[in-house]
Amino acid sequence: MAVKPYIVIMAGGIGSRFWPASRESMPKQFLDILGLGRSLIQLTYDRFASWIPAQQIMVLTHADYKNLVIKQLPDLPVHNIICEPARRNTAPCIAYGAFRISKKDPDAVMVVVPSDHLILKEEAFRIALNMATNFAAANDALLTLSIKPTRPDTGYGYIQFAEPNDAGVCPVLNFTEKPPIEKAKAFLAEGNYAWNAGIFIWSVSSVLKAFMHFAPSIYKLFERALPHYFTESEESYMQHHYQQADNISVDYAIMESADNVFTIPADIGWSDLGTWTSLFEESSHDKNQNACNTTLLLAKDSSENMIRGQNGKLMVIGGLENFIIIDEKDVLLIWPKDDEQSIKEVTKQAAEKFRGIFN
Amino acid sequence: MAVKPYIVIMAGGIGSRFWPASRESMPKQFLDILGLGRSLIQLTYDRFASWIPAQQIMVLTHADYKNLVIKQLPDLPVHNIICEPARRNTAPCIAYGAFRISKKDPDAVMVVVPSDHLILKEEAFRIALNMATNFAAANDALLTLSIKPTRPDTGYGYIQFAEPNDAGVCPVLNFTEKPPIEKAKAFLAEGNYAWNAGIFIWSVSSVLKAFMHFAPSIYKLFERALPHYFTESEESYMQHHYQQADNISVDYAIMESADNVFTIPADIGWSDLGTWTSLFEESSHDKNQNACNTTLLLAKDSSENMIRGQNGKLMVIGGLENFIIIDEKDVLLIWPKDDEQSIKEVTKQAAEKFRGIFN
Repeated sequence: MAVKPYIVIMAGGIGSRFWPASRESMPKQFLDILGLGRSLIQLTYDRFASWIPAQQIMVLTHADYKNLVIKQLPDLPVHNIICEPARRNTAPCIAYGAFRISKKDPDAVMVVVPSDHLILKEEAFRIALNMATNFAAANDALLTLSIKPTRPDTGYGYIQFAEPNDAGVCPVLNFTEKPPIEKAKAFLAEGNYAWNAGIFIWSVSSVLKAFMHFAPSIYKLFERALPHYFTESEESYMQHHYQQADNISVDYAIMESADNVFTIPADIGWSDLGTWTSLFEESSHDKNQNACNTTLLLAKDSSENMIRGQNGKLMVIGGLENFIIIDEKDVLLIWPKDDEQSIKEVTKQAAEKFRGIFN
Repeated sequence: MAVKPYIVIMAGGIGSRFWPASRESMPKQFLDILGLGRSLIQLTYDRFASWIPAQQIMVLTHADYKNLVIKQLPDLPVHNIICEPARRNTAPCIAYGAFRISKKDPDAVMVVVPSDHLILKEEAFRIALNMATNFAAANDALLTLSIKPTRPDTGYGYIQFAEPNDAGVCPVLNFTEKPPIEKAKAFLAEGNYAWNAGIFIWSVSSVLKAFMHFAPSIYKLFERALPHYFTESEESYMQHHYQQADNISVDYAIMESADNVFTIPADIGWSDLGTWTSLFEESSHDKNQNACNTTLLLAKDSSENMIRGQNGKLMVIGGLENFIIIDEKDVLLIWPKDDEQSIKEVTKQAAEKFRGIFN
């Protein structure tokens, strides 16, 4: 019998790499960045809504985005929106979510997923997730669903795994954050490395035990909050105490230290849509390899451009190769794809020079 | 005593080279293209309004633009807006204007000026114009105010002139339309060549005599209309007959044939603002030689760009050199400056592909 896990959708990011389409007030996960008529968080919600009851789907987000979540996910019970009053990376908010679920259902299995990734192979994803939740329900184990790598990408974390056990899950040997290119190439050649996609599966009891051992201050902070969960005092308690939590990722806080970590390397058609370039790769292209979200494009001597125009606006470009062109109502960005990493820097400059009005 | 000429401002062009800032419904002359708070036609009107009575200033334009002229030049008497019902180049509408003025004042001197040029040295312009109008009032002469050339531009017409006479005006020896570059260079080296700026000065009697000799069909067409000028039947008469006029420029129709043509080569800080590139040259530049009409620009590795943004919109550009970037509400154009001549072509494509909605 399949375990029905609790789903925790992580939606607190500000998506600065997608500026100016993504803003602090309207981050990437709330945008219909693929032009499908649904935002990334809506696509994420849809991925579970058909087989997990809405009461078991939760969204962990920053307090600023609560209204956006309510608006975009009207079927989600409002008390399932868990708000962090301050940004403290993933470890504190996962501990918060785990304690909260454990108060209701101490035997629960919990799945943590990002709100802004693309998963094309839904069936493969669900099969892998079922395997993982069944294993997590039966074992004291911390699992990740990892991605079979297709290129020696230096922007991801790599998980080294051993041969699968009888349940089809692989013990994890090692985590390596963003390796240099030579190392990444070697990982691919080895064959027993997969990308860390930020998808975690565990029973709340297992993950809380791990927090207790490896991140005791975070554990204690949210354990003391137990009487407040699902009460009127929860919000004010968090307002006062949340910011004391260590600013640390769940990978660093527990996964890299625990010895009961497993992974299921899967081919689920995954992209983190982490950059304009990765979005470009997931988009459809015209005969000159331009990707444009509208049909109102006239291009001459132009190829390999990632173009995002406004509804009904004509884009006329000449002599542009390998550029990102993002036209928003209040910001126009024209930037070389090869220099995408410096957009973040220019966003900062814009924030400073123009007092944040374009952020 | 200074002659007070009649001023005829030519404002019928559609300014397609400034698309998408300029549209058929709102051509260049009606745009504040320099960001001065006044459109080019307003700047042209202002240039005369301080010393020529409004009753003696006329605007010759296409019927479609009558309301724009009324709106932008509220001090201009409405009956001084002369509308051509069809586009027939400059000869017919100048003959029309000359006959109309001659009916009121057969001794009038008339100055024809474009509505969309820039003249920075107003004092020098007025001095040259006074010389020209005095000469035209006293002699049967067709004058142009020409521009001392600063570069071997192949986009202009060149006027070869002889030594000035006692009145300081130079007999014209020859007209050469858009010469090849080697010829243009030779003209500059010779020293007695100037650019034809489309500024004409003559008595109405002299110009009508020239039309009678060199363009008799145009002459007759507008002579027959004499009873209608300033009456209720003028508009309907023109509606029926104007389109029969030859489609021909005043240069070709009379200036290149007449032997009483004179010029005053002048340094009046002139630019025809005929292209984005020429506008770029007249604009102020930042330290990287980018010209931008707003202060909301963040640029990296970018220089020599001509940028026209919307009010309050942030422009962020990287890796762009020598581009024209024009951001309008409904059209974004990013085009190499070196390939400006093909914008006209792409405008046509846009008109065909998108049924004229962006023209």
